Amino acid sequence: MKKLLLSLFITALALATNAEDGHQLWLRYQPVNKALVTAEKQSPTIQIAKQELETYYNGANVTLKLDATMPDDDGYRIVANTITARREAGLLYGAFALLRGEKAESHPAFALRLLNHWDNLDGSIERGYAGESIFEWFHLDETLIREYARANASIGINGSVLNNVNASPKMLTTPYLKEVKKIADILRPYHIKVYLSINFATPMALKETKTADPLDKSVARWWKKKAKEIYRLIPDFGGFLVKANSEGQPGPGDFGRTHADGANMLADALKPYKGIVMWRCFVYGANHKGEDRVKQAVSEFKPLDGQFRDNVILQTKNGPLDFQPREPYSAVFDQISKTPNMVELQITQEYLGQSRHLVYLAPMWQEFFSFVKPSSLSGIAGVANIGKDRNWCGHHFSQANWYAFGRLAWNPALTSGQIAKEWLVQTFTSDASFVETMSRVMVESREACVDYMMPLGLHHIFKFDHHYGPEPDGFKADYPLEWCPVYYHQADKDGVGFNRSHTGTNATGQYRDSIARLYDDVKTCPENLLLWFHHVPWTHRMANGNTLWEELQFRYNQGVITTESNYNLWHNRMQQYVDHQRWLEVDARMYDQMQNAREWRDTCLGYFRQFAEP
Amino acid sequence: MKKLLLSLFITALALATNAEDGHQLWLRYQPVNKALVTAEKQSPTIQIAKQELETYYNGANVTLKLDATMPDDDGYRIVANTITARREAGLLYGAFALLRGEKAESHPAFALRLLNHWDNLDGSIERGYAGESIFEWFHLDETLIREYARANASIGINGSVLNNVNASPKMLTTPYLKEVKKIADILRPYHIKVYLSINFATPMALKETKTADPLDKSVARWWKKKAKEIYRLIPDFGGFLVKANSEGQPGPGDFGRTHADGANMLADALKPYKGIVMWRCFVYGANHKGEDRVKQAVSEFKPLDGQFRDNVILQTKNGPLDFQPREPYSAVFDQISKTPNMVELQITQEYLGQSRHLVYLAPMWQEFFSFVKPSSLSGIAGVANIGKDRNWCGHHFSQANWYAFGRLAWNPALTSGQIAKEWLVQTFTSDASFVETMSRVMVESREACVDYMMPLGLHHIFKFDHHYGPEPDGFKADYPLEWCPVYYHQADKDGVGFNRSHTGTNATGQYRDSIARLYDDVKTCPENLLLWFHHVPWTHRMANGNTLWEELQFRYNQGVITTESNYNLWHNRMQQYVDHQRWLEVDARMYDQMQNAREWRDTCLGYFRQFAEP
Repeated sequence: MKKLLLSLFITALALATNAEDGHQLWLRYQPVNKALVTAEKQSPTIQIAKQELETYYNGANVTLKLDATMPDDDGYRIVANTITARREAGLLYGAFALLRGEKAESHPAFALRLLNHWDNLDGSIERGYAGESIFEWFHLDETLIREYARANASIGINGSVLNNVNASPKMLTTPYLKEVKKIADILRPYHIKVYLSINFATPMALKETKTADPLDKSVARWWKKKAKEIYRLIPDFGGFLVKANSEGQPGPGDFGRTHADGANMLADALKPYKGIVMWRCFVYGANHKGEDRVKQAVSEFKPLDGQFRDNVILQTKNGPLDFQPREPYSAVFDQISKTPNMVELQITQEYLGQSRHLVYLAPMWQEFFSFVKPSSLSGIAGVANIGKDRNWCGHHFSQANWYAFGRLAWNPALTSGQIAKEWLVQTFTSDASFVETMSRVMVESREACVDYMMPLGLHHIFKFDHHYGPEPDGFKADYPLEWCPVYYHQADKDGVGFNRSHTGTNATGQYRDSIARLYDDVKTCPENLLLWFHHVPWTHRMANGNTLWEELQFRYNQGVITTESNYNLWHNRMQQYVDHQRWLEVDARMYDQMQNAREWRDTCLGYFRQFAEP
Repeated sequence: MKKLLLSLFITALALATNAEDGHQLWLRYQPVNKALVTAEKQSPTIQIAKQELETYYNGANVTLKLDATMPDDDGYRIVANTITARREAGLLYGAFALLRGEKAESHPAFALRLLNHWDNLDGSIERGYAGESIFEWFHLDETLIREYARANASIGINGSVLNNVNASPKMLTTPYLKEVKKIADILRPYHIKVYLSINFATPMALKETKTADPLDKSVARWWKKKAKEIYRLIPDFGGFLVKANSEGQPGPGDFGRTHADGANMLADALKPYKGIVMWRCFVYGANHKGEDRVKQAVSEFKPLDGQFRDNVILQTKNGPLDFQPREPYSAVFDQISKTPNMVELQITQEYLGQSRHLVYLAPMWQEFFSFVKPSSLSGIAGVANIGKDRNWCGHHFSQANWYAFGRLAWNPALTSGQIAKEWLVQTFTSDASFVETMSRVMVESREACVDYMMPLGLHHIFKFDHHYGPEPDGFKADYPLEWCPVYYHQADKDGVGFNRSHTGTNATGQYRDSIARLYDDVKTCPENLLLWFHHVPWTHRMANGNTLWEELQFRYNQGVITTESNYNLWHNRMQQYVDHQRWLEVDARMYDQMQNAREWRDTCLGYFRQFAEP
């Protein structure tokens, strides 16, 4: 009897547990089957919009209308339970908007709103912290992929690059392409196009050509044939994403050709089908080896500006280094004007605590947009934080970064707080105490992370390889210098920071004049970027009168205190608002975050102290 | 040469050090010798007012005027550099007010604004945390006493009880009285009257009577004679403060007489000279032994109300127990209506971190005034935190409690923040960053102390005797039960807190009706007094939805986090505003406070956890 009770208890627990494992993301509407939805036209996309509303909309009947006089984009207009749109996609987005409670006209800021999956063909994910890839080649979980598509559609994402930018040549083989077709078929009604990262040397690696020289005719021919094959399988295939001549990846440089030569050859192959090439500017250690790493992208690409085909877009990370907790924006956005630009953001928190830390990234992305106008960009890509973990993202609060990326890709004018509240209400509860408290915690979390990891413009003092903990004394003689923390903080008895002003590497000179002047002068350089651009004495006076060393200590401590305060709020005040499993899982991670923050502070201050207080 | 330089350096250091050891308190005006001051009348008090202004006032000439048409109190009016007052004291107070920058008419809320020194004749101080007594009998430091008088006058204090309420009979012997006269002579021009605590059995203890029975004629005669002697030496002697039949002190109860019998006998002796008797209501363990300790004062004194002479004032501690970080107000103030009341506050931080913790007490005192109207009281006394330490109070920020006591005794409508800012500007610097930051730290410090020591109405869980650290499991079989922490928190598996509602000791029943109803019902009892009045299950729901146990944990953590945040502010941001010695001394104490707060949290939560999470 005792055994039976125990087993019943375990079953009940398992059920309760499954119910709130976070898998539903922000899509927790209860079926009400209330509203009737009418539409003039039938189609798979319209069918999804209808079904979402008929199942979940807790209001009056809804009409879906296509209107050819509306702007030619994915936007929608919601007036008195009628959703009007130019495209079917607009009706779908309008349906999700209505479910969220929106009633307005809304148009996306970016035409391209893409997720980049750094998923390898073996199921592993580079910089993935939520389990293996959801794209299980030759064993596709169609239900999971459909859930993925629905979640993306609900926040306006309209493209997925399915594989890692460090791409395998196998990706373009016919067996894999047939699998890609299956995924594309599932995603299509959700208005999501499929893209692929390609290995520039694919034909040579597959031994189908002798070279991968983009100016070699056999190579160009191969790509044209491959494009034809792809589009036969996937008529709306989006295009290629390319990492070339960067961190060991092959590229046109291997054959004495330029990035433009390489990109254009691919662009020509895709052009007949309206496909695009997204060519990454994340290039260093190649033609400009030895130059300050943050300058190399501009050095490489500025001379090529104007030489690209019109279906090539340059894709550049928000900052000039590599997704640090805080970077200045990349000067590529100031220097490339004749080629379309898109920005690559990182949703997965490679350098911001991965899936262990609650760090909400919307404030970081909005900071970027305060320097680079969304209207100057042709698209936006986010490196996904999605894996096969039941809750998709590892940390329940990392779901908010996926959500916020989608919302900002649609409307970068939304505030971080608005998006956080929207997400909290949908994901947890509308209780005001919870939403007010946790939205504040979320909005402050990125600055706290900067504080406990790398305040005042410090950067890249991570442990080698895994990019999680601190290693300020990191130096390996057999590693490229620009992978070593000591190269980036340059701490010595005279001061700390990387001199990138005109007396140093002159990285400041790559910015547009007004910004260049601001950053170049230690007196006007924003203090949150001070050590990015200047080597500054420990006794340097900050605006608040503190010495640099005092302020550095203050910031590290403040970051830790914020994590303690947040953990105290979650652990002792929030339990009542959240189902037990999610509360517990977040709780364990916030505890770790607090401990990690202390480790960051103690390690970094301990290291810098030897120079600051010799 | 090297030696000479070193010695010069040490001298310079010593000078710099002495200059900022905190001895100047809030009186740091620089001599400017600018204004001429005219007064119609000459007197020692007016001379002090003149001298302060002529030396330090950085403005136009000042006129001092006595005006018999003004209200008969210590107030003043400042209009266009003319100070007008009914009394000479008003001119003195007006002078200090003008130096502070005030220009207005102002009158004191309390006629009696007294410091109570718990100083023993051997130089030790009960609950003193700043060195030995400034009153060195037979070796009086007249300069120090004059500085003490000036500081008190600058904030309106007009009386000092020189010795401990646990009083030695020797205090009233002629040699000591001659010393008291010397002190009185120094204090007089500063408008500060001298009072003495007396041992009720003095004549018997000195073997000058056979009994101390207040109804015995020889005893009454002795006191009359003693009064005559005192007033011959000190014509404006203020009167007696009496702790009788409490904690081992003798009293009328020892002879079967009431407190009224005792007080009246003394009152009769002082009456011819307009002296007063301040009779303390801090009585327990006597006639009502075994009753809830917090009820005993009302039980003892309410039946006697109406039986006291008109020069007797009952002096009652703000709360019914003993200067805990948070107590409800004492019901004595509701129950005694025919006898004048005065409140006894504790400036020395016996139970609030002593001189190690930065805890600013003004918010606590204002909380008291929100329940007990100042206009219902005849006077206010503060147990002083003054000793022979160079900085007077041990902790530089404890000076603020002395200052705030004086300012609130004059005007209880001032806010804690106003007083803190006033004090910070005079004591440190007027720099807005410093004043804004540190006034916030000060204003929040008392609630933080409650949080890390005894939140939600917990009380008296201090280590035995020294009243500093935590000892929640404190129990000694040979101690009175009401000295043991376990008696006060009553934690068990069912809950925590002291049931003082009508189902318990009914201490709530001693309050005026509206308050009694509020406190008696667990649903309406203010949560910050919950465990003072109720034994509450660990799972009790707080207004914010938390369980009691969750909220207790939240509060303890929050208190610690506040001390960490404050330490971080002081250690890493405030150094630039404060001279090195004071910065360093405060810094060391704030570090200790942070560590102590952690000890409080860890000890108390660890102890309570065994019941809350069995």
